[in-house]
Amino acid sequence: MVYLDHAATTPMLPEAVAALTGALGAVGNPSSLHAAGRRARRAVEEARERLAAALGARPSEVLFTGGGTESDNLAVKGIFWARRDADPRKTVVLASAVEHHAVLDAVDWLAAREGATVELLPVDADGRVSPATLSEALEKHGDTVALVTVMWANNEVGTVQPVAELAAIAKAAGVPFHSDAVQAVGQVPVDFHASGVDAMTLTGHKVGGPLGVGALLLGRDVPCVPLLHGGGQERDVRSGTLDTPAIVAFAVAVEAVVEAQASYAARVASLRDELVSRLLAEVPDAVLNGPSSGSSRLPGNAHFSFPGCEGDALLMLLDARGIECSTGSACSAGVAQPSHVLVAMGSGVERARGSLRFSLGHTSTVGDVDALVAAIGGVVDRARRAGAVRKA
Amino acid sequence: MVYLDHAATTPMLPEAVAALTGALGAVGNPSSLHAAGRRARRAVEEARERLAAALGARPSEVLFTGGGTESDNLAVKGIFWARRDADPRKTVVLASAVEHHAVLDAVDWLAAREGATVELLPVDADGRVSPATLSEALEKHGDTVALVTVMWANNEVGTVQPVAELAAIAKAAGVPFHSDAVQAVGQVPVDFHASGVDAMTLTGHKVGGPLGVGALLLGRDVPCVPLLHGGGQERDVRSGTLDTPAIVAFAVAVEAVVEAQASYAARVASLRDELVSRLLAEVPDAVLNGPSSGSSRLPGNAHFSFPGCEGDALLMLLDARGIECSTGSACSAGVAQPSHVLVAMGSGVERARGSLRFSLGHTSTVGDVDALVAAIGGVVDRARRAGAVRKA
Repeated sequence: MVYLDHAATTPMLPEAVAALTGALGAVGNPSSLHAAGRRARRAVEEARERLAAALGARPSEVLFTGGGTESDNLAVKGIFWARRDADPRKTVVLASAVEHHAVLDAVDWLAAREGATVELLPVDADGRVSPATLSEALEKHGDTVALVTVMWANNEVGTVQPVAELAAIAKAAGVPFHSDAVQAVGQVPVDFHASGVDAMTLTGHKVGGPLGVGALLLGRDVPCVPLLHGGGQERDVRSGTLDTPAIVAFAVAVEAVVEAQASYAARVASLRDELVSRLLAEVPDAVLNGPSSGSSRLPGNAHFSFPGCEGDALLMLLDARGIECSTGSACSAGVAQPSHVLVAMGSGVERARGSLRFSLGHTSTVGDVDALVAAIGGVVDRARRAGAVRKA
Repeated sequence: MVYLDHAATTPMLPEAVAALTGALGAVGNPSSLHAAGRRARRAVEEARERLAAALGARPSEVLFTGGGTESDNLAVKGIFWARRDADPRKTVVLASAVEHHAVLDAVDWLAAREGATVELLPVDADGRVSPATLSEALEKHGDTVALVTVMWANNEVGTVQPVAELAAIAKAAGVPFHSDAVQAVGQVPVDFHASGVDAMTLTGHKVGGPLGVGALLLGRDVPCVPLLHGGGQERDVRSGTLDTPAIVAFAVAVEAVVEAQASYAARVASLRDELVSRLLAEVPDAVLNGPSSGSSRLPGNAHFSFPGCEGDALLMLLDARGIECSTGSACSAGVAQPSHVLVAMGSGVERARGSLRFSLGHTSTVGDVDALVAAIGGVVDRARRAGAVRKA
């Protein structure tokens, strides 16, 4: 199997597997007061400290959740509610047009049910939100903006946003800034305090940690109404029994990928660059979507449009040859709509439909690139013939 | 260590550990279309079928979540919103007075923010909601009731509610009925369809499965607005990447405990009865809270008040002797308030404060009972002396 879909989910790191399996035997609810409970609590708090230190946050700013979708929903809805509670005029949400559906669908829900006005910040042809765009939107809406949410790096085309610049602009306007950093942690340098963001989403299974666990980093002074009520865990912002084994393994993974980030990025970006150039040699009319320069793109991401092809057909033909990739976000897989990300970048619908994402990760090798390069020409030819037949 | 706190969290079953660790090595997001994604999807769907079959539900009625708190919040808020959307008059929530905080705090939030009117259904001295109480409340509120929520079995005193009778009354009134069955699954017979409930919460770590995973069983015709928006997983009611390894292990655990339920209950209830009689012989003025008859009480639950003692002091003194128990719900541990459950049952605050829960489970032995019985007399004496000193 040639796995080129690390952006959908990446294999667990051996040290995270070891941490998880090692913690399964310990019993104890971290909320319990007896010795077993206190041991579980200590394990959680040590994990919180390690994760915070790796990401430039204070331990008290780490809220453990059930994953990226929950963190995004909590940040977007919770901060919206809290800001509107404090001032009923604050009903505007500014979100980039290329957010993940966990953010986009959450803000759509706020618009449909909670009276929010959502303005999608346009992006350039590389998928980037310019600081000027945010400044203008903040100026236009004045005191009515509840929050800004712009992802750290895009899950489809890999565009890294100018997060620190955008966060500084939001801060100057007194508006909380959330960033979905699910794709960024371990791939590019991510420092919560240095970035100036007020809230940041990350998740275990994109960094070599377990599924089903994530975190929202939330500044101590950022108001946020809970989504899940109950036992009052996690500063009363996120109730639910803490998943000690997953949290411990998540922290181990975050620590490992952050420590290795620079060497990882150099190795994987070089593989990715090889993939791009060799693929373009095989299929000269393929179009690389997203930024061409390395520093503004995730190291493992390559995203192409293949004129005259259907992305789904390409995906299935490659899959039949043991090569696994994606047409875009795994979370929207099977949905017969052109990617909102490519459309926002100004691709036509046709080009958006004929696109594939190859995402490399910690287990990727040059053999994976070789296999893709060997297969892609024939696959594209076949998909084009099928497309031509369908049109005829 | 003598672990008498299985109601807070119970050790994983060996077969669930094996299922979880066996699934960690497989990569693939169940939403991905390639072979790895389809394998993960098959594992999830097979788990869904097994869990559904064990609980008398259809696979399509199983929504996987991040745990009991999330399932409770989703059911209570989601059904409330959906019912009120369909008919703005439907704003009343009927909840038993002894619900877990994941339900109580969720309905309180609906009252505080969403205009809900919450009526807490009173319970008798055993902690039981009588069918007549529900009938009267439904009659009183007529067409304005959005939902009824009554837990299957209480987490503190172990009272098993007459769920089928209550659900039938709600059905006759045309009102959806949710039951938090977190403590019930594997302890007493639980059959979703036979019970007539419309929505039912369960969670992994109370049945020997992993933490961080749970389910909401939701009838196909029960409307429910999502709490978490995004990729549209789980019938579009619960977005978020599915946690394949945890889901697989959760289903294995549910299947195992449901299959073993009758023999487990006989064995554990007998241990529990021994614990109760021997403890009362050691501390004759201790008061057993909750039902005295076996069939209306969870087999592993024993809950006492010790007059003149502080529950926290007893807990710590026992803990120092290697015996782990709880003053009530782990989720409220450390909160210096008398249990709302005992207060609703008519205990005075004094009695509520001096109470301890001992909860047995699949690893419990007669040695655990021996250890508790050997320690309890001295511990109670010491706590009483401390209490007397404080009062003097």
